[in-house]
Amino acid sequence: MIIDHIGIVVKDIEIGIKHWDKVFGYSQMTKVVTNTRQKVKVVFLQKENSILIKLIEPSAEDSPIFIFAKKGGGLHHLCFKCDNMETQLEICKEQRIRILTEPQPGEAFENENSAFLYAKHGLNIELIETDKKAELL
Amino acid sequence: MIIDHIGIVVKDIEIGIKHWDKVFGYSQMTKVVTNTRQKVKVVFLQKENSILIKLIEPSAEDSPIFIFAKKGGGLHHLCFKCDNMETQLEICKEQRIRILTEPQPGEAFENENSAFLYAKHGLNIELIETDKKAELL
Repeated sequence: MIIDHIGIVVKDIEIGIKHWDKVFGYSQMTKVVTNTRQKVKVVFLQKENSILIKLIEPSAEDSPIFIFAKKGGGLHHLCFKCDNMETQLEICKEQRIRILTEPQPGEAFENENSAFLYAKHGLNIELIETDKKAELL
Repeated sequence: MIIDHIGIVVKDIEIGIKHWDKVFGYSQMTKVVTNTRQKVKVVFLQKENSILIKLIEPSAEDSPIFIFAKKGGGLHHLCFKCDNMETQLEICKEQRIRILTEPQPGEAFENENSAFLYAKHGLNIELIETDKKAELL
């Protein structure tokens, strides 16, 4: 598994996009899409060959990140790309990593599956099998 | 500025190293060194051409990350490499990013300077000017 992107929760995704552009020089790479299952708006940012950044804003009050965003947001998860999600989930289960959501299609990845896990050391982990991202700008 | 590494706080750095090797396949790249100013033990991990991971364990009860580690730890900061730290600090100040610690030498970077900042969206940021890392394994 290799880290595909870093997930960062923000209160307002449009302000977040401007902030990352102004301060860090990271550009908006995809359209802002709403993931209807996880109730979040997401956008990918990139700069040269640096790691991808995903900004995440809750799109409803019952979004899993609503409270985190309300408190100010910040670093939320690391997303790993794996060759085979079922195999990787088995390895994670053996390591007593908790599966938070089983693989389900997400609009941020053109409806390919992603799963959420919770590992030791307070680490939120997302697993994907795909390089696909939401529609590019 | 480009992201150089992701800082992750752990309760026990040796357990953290084993965990990252077993679950994610990331290998220990440097010796574990103690940063005497920030009162932390740090180690860098890497896998192929993926982003660098820095595990951080508090080395004293008055370490700035002691409470965070006690609560379980997790994603702590993003470290950006910049061409000129003084210039970058000025840009950050203009953007109302709070300077937490002014540039000071750190053992993790062969005593080159690093600075800590706190940005919008609950983001801890480290700034470095160097590619140097603690002694390789």
